[in-house]
Amino acid sequence: MSSAPRFAFAVSASDGRARTGVIAMRRGEIRTPAFMPVGTAATVKAMKPADVRAAGADIILGNTYHLMLRPGAERIARLGGLHRFMGWEQPILTDSGGYQVMSLAARNSVGEEGVAFASHLDGSRHMLSPERSMDIQALLGSDIVMAFDQLVPTTAPLDEQAAAMERSMRWARRSREAFAGDGALFGIQQGGLDEGLRRASAEALIDIGFDGYAVGGLAVGEGQEAMLGCLDFAPGQLPEASPRYLMGVGKPDDVVAAVERGIDMFDCVLPTRSGRTGQAFTSDGPINIKNARFADESGPLDPSCGCPVCATWSRAYLHHLVRSGEILGAMLMTEHNLGFYQQLMAGLRSAIADRRLAEFAAGFRARYLG
Amino acid sequence: MSSAPRFAFAVSASDGRARTGVIAMRRGEIRTPAFMPVGTAATVKAMKPADVRAAGADIILGNTYHLMLRPGAERIARLGGLHRFMGWEQPILTDSGGYQVMSLAARNSVGEEGVAFASHLDGSRHMLSPERSMDIQALLGSDIVMAFDQLVPTTAPLDEQAAAMERSMRWARRSREAFAGDGALFGIQQGGLDEGLRRASAEALIDIGFDGYAVGGLAVGEGQEAMLGCLDFAPGQLPEASPRYLMGVGKPDDVVAAVERGIDMFDCVLPTRSGRTGQAFTSDGPINIKNARFADESGPLDPSCGCPVCATWSRAYLHHLVRSGEILGAMLMTEHNLGFYQQLMAGLRSAIADRRLAEFAAGFRARYLG
Repeated sequence: MSSAPRFAFAVSASDGRARTGVIAMRRGEIRTPAFMPVGTAATVKAMKPADVRAAGADIILGNTYHLMLRPGAERIARLGGLHRFMGWEQPILTDSGGYQVMSLAARNSVGEEGVAFASHLDGSRHMLSPERSMDIQALLGSDIVMAFDQLVPTTAPLDEQAAAMERSMRWARRSREAFAGDGALFGIQQGGLDEGLRRASAEALIDIGFDGYAVGGLAVGEGQEAMLGCLDFAPGQLPEASPRYLMGVGKPDDVVAAVERGIDMFDCVLPTRSGRTGQAFTSDGPINIKNARFADESGPLDPSCGCPVCATWSRAYLHHLVRSGEILGAMLMTEHNLGFYQQLMAGLRSAIADRRLAEFAAGFRARYLG
Repeated sequence: MSSAPRFAFAVSASDGRARTGVIAMRRGEIRTPAFMPVGTAATVKAMKPADVRAAGADIILGNTYHLMLRPGAERIARLGGLHRFMGWEQPILTDSGGYQVMSLAARNSVGEEGVAFASHLDGSRHMLSPERSMDIQALLGSDIVMAFDQLVPTTAPLDEQAAAMERSMRWARRSREAFAGDGALFGIQQGGLDEGLRRASAEALIDIGFDGYAVGGLAVGEGQEAMLGCLDFAPGQLPEASPRYLMGVGKPDDVVAAVERGIDMFDCVLPTRSGRTGQAFTSDGPINIKNARFADESGPLDPSCGCPVCATWSRAYLHHLVRSGEILGAMLMTEHNLGFYQQLMAGLRSAIADRRLAEFAAGFRARYLG
């Protein structure tokens, strides 16, 4: 572990604004563009860590908000950190808690110091601030720590968005000063859909200096067209030499379009959550396996897929499992969906390396959206 | 597959009434004494087939009643049979449906022909008879087919028990005559707790002739002492040269005591069902992982266990998963419990081979019940 760098991002090829490369870290390499499965409560739901890894994930995401409430950051630290606790040895990125504290917690109250809130689990009172978020992420043993930020809807008045962005930049500086981990620290660009606010945010972050930069505040209901409009300018405002991470995105076609616009990292609950409700992603678009037409189909979820689920089980079997409420249904649907996403990322990486991304993306869209 | 025998049971060692050996079948060998995980609805709940196999299972059980109702025996046959449908290549034993049709179905009506009943899923009307049960088990592609029988409680008046046993023996003959599979057929001894009825049942079955013989009608609430009392004579009434299968048993200490009384095969939902409700079997007895005292325990579920779960995860982590309602909690608890049962069976087999079963059983009980 000692010979590996703390954090080094090397781009090996680019195609238009898209690029492919590797982030080298102590716990392993992250091939970019990368998709990070979400492991909210110290588990990628319905998946064993070895199967997450086998699907092709180099890194997963953990949620500060959920883990601080249950089982508690100090407890995880006493038990040897999040990697050991959940049995995942590769890198983990942890979010700052800023998003969940606004979307999930009850009775939250935001001030310059941070956010006071009540747990959605038991109503207990807690506080998150840049300093406490850095503290918790260090206790978890996070490899990539996210700065603590404040989110407002993209539909909020511009002065509210500006104020939240400016506070987020003050919090980004406090996050940087409080950060004491031996991993990497990412800043988060805010500013809604406004190009000027995004530019001001990017400049503030660059002035502070981070290992990587996230585009935050998108994928919160603004719609794909508005999001892609923002991604036409936002990634270009961030340093070329650092990874750019689009938080909370997205659908497979969102991911392809964002890679075309220069994004290197993604996380989203979609493949795992959909897997638990019967939605499977396939090369020909999503399907709901509960649909009666699948009851007798002997073929795999996706004939073009190389995942272990498609190699072994039929649509008819998955239909039966999901209809019957069997846990194995959630397990296998999730494993396929994660495999589908990771195969998409591998396809994007090799298309960029071969400078045929436009062709790859057109072929993907023709089948997936066709 | 063609060089393997249809069904051959070879005892390699015995110790008292206990014996160890191998049942050789076309789809694989079954080491006895054997524990069969229950795969009710074409899935051992919360387990991938490869993990069931890795835990040490040579054979699993499927339920005729459940599968005939959903997804349907004819559908499974069209899809290539139960093994292919669920991705399990080793032998499968299917029950006859006789037990569930009395315990789960609604508005059942028993006559000499068979049992008419309504599905517990949707109220649809169905019929099971010796002939239909053999037909369904053949459609599923079962390796070990169970004769269709009629159960009554062990507390029923003796004349009712005698009548049910005698009908079961007529149904056993009809099962034998209707059986057309290329696997094995087992008869089921009935007669409650009565030695005379059990003897008459055994003689009737032997007269018909089966590949193996089950002790049926136990583990239905009579208590361990009564069950073991019956097992003091019932297995000895069945052919020495054939496997003896105790249906629906049981707790680990039940299994040990039944092996001491000459039983070769077991099935029970206990390890899988308990795994989904937070109960873990350990060498020092069962524990409920939801108990608050496990929240900070860094050690494995069972320090004496060699399963992958105990090699990787702490009690604290499993406590967290189960408390949080995470699917992975059910998965890992089930995997451990099945591993615990299979390690117990392996221990029993090698103790019998070494003729030190009494010592093994005493050591097991001192820790497990102590």
